[in-house]
Amino acid sequence: MSKFLPKSVRDLIEEFAKLPGIGPKSAQRLAIYLLRSPGSRLEPLGRAVLNLKENVVFCETCWNISEENPCPICSDPGRDKSVICVVEDVLDVVALEKTGDFDGVYHVLHGALSPIDRIGPDQLKLIDLFRRIEKGGLDEVILATNPSLEGEATSLYIQKHLKDSKVKITRIARGLPVGGDLEYADEVTLSRALAGRLEF
Amino acid sequence: MSKFLPKSVRDLIEEFAKLPGIGPKSAQRLAIYLLRSPGSRLEPLGRAVLNLKENVVFCETCWNISEENPCPICSDPGRDKSVICVVEDVLDVVALEKTGDFDGVYHVLHGALSPIDRIGPDQLKLIDLFRRIEKGGLDEVILATNPSLEGEATSLYIQKHLKDSKVKITRIARGLPVGGDLEYADEVTLSRALAGRLEF
Repeated sequence: MSKFLPKSVRDLIEEFAKLPGIGPKSAQRLAIYLLRSPGSRLEPLGRAVLNLKENVVFCETCWNISEENPCPICSDPGRDKSVICVVEDVLDVVALEKTGDFDGVYHVLHGALSPIDRIGPDQLKLIDLFRRIEKGGLDEVILATNPSLEGEATSLYIQKHLKDSKVKITRIARGLPVGGDLEYADEVTLSRALAGRLEF
Repeated sequence: MSKFLPKSVRDLIEEFAKLPGIGPKSAQRLAIYLLRSPGSRLEPLGRAVLNLKENVVFCETCWNISEENPCPICSDPGRDKSVICVVEDVLDVVALEKTGDFDGVYHVLHGALSPIDRIGPDQLKLIDLFRRIEKGGLDEVILATNPSLEGEATSLYIQKHLKDSKVKITRIARGLPVGGDLEYADEVTLSRALAGRLEF
């Protein structure tokens, strides 16, 4: 790499280039951009990186990230605890909350089944989900995994596992383009997908 | 923004989104990616940002960034001090050094003339360049600014300013990029490639 740059600059380029979606050229540009900025610009970014995990905990009910355990959604008396929406990712919760159309609670799996990446049921928050469902008191489990191969496989796995359960299992409608990514869907599409969910 | 995320996560998303070429969605993805990584991944990135300007100085001869003043290129007895290559940016030095084809020295302008961005001659390292040239002992000044409107204007400005000087002034060739495709080249590039044709 750019042995012609000072070490501290090379270090930052290397660290940036490790991030997903940032290639070596973008990493160079970012580092040089920051080098030109006043030092007061570096401080908040550096601190924000170092403090990222400060005060961040997992909600041990829904496994969303939060500042409290249980999280504000799980502890909100206004939310319908009898409807659980199962998502892959914390950003999916953000996307669904933005629609304002869902007043149940969530369960974040933290991924999807993917044998190729060695992600099996034990790597996801599936046992916790099944335990929550076994406890009873549920009217509906909405499966809102991504409309991708892995997401579909994960939904299918959950549905099969729960086929003897009395709880209603639904899947958000395929208003989402297949192969797409839930968090990138616009709010209207997401609302439609929620409203058009079908029973398994 | 994502008021459903913990503050420390929102802070980092905000800081990432301020960087050039990183939109709010990419900023979210980066922050969540780092949140999932072990804490030991955050430390080097955070430190690299905070330490970026540590030990970085400008070479007061060529205005490249370096750990020493003068920089290793300017202080290298093997480099030909009679040939100065003028570039806009420190990354241009990196790009040219990678070719291994240039054994002269550099002069980094730190930008290009751009009235719309209020960048005039005084905002660039032009006076230093002219002083270097006035000192004498030079055989050639190679203008290697970007082939953009601003880069061309900057080269023209330098060339006009030095028209009474005895030093040879050259401009790096413009033409078809190697590995490129003639039919996809824009008209200006093709015109330049034609005008700059060389005899076999």
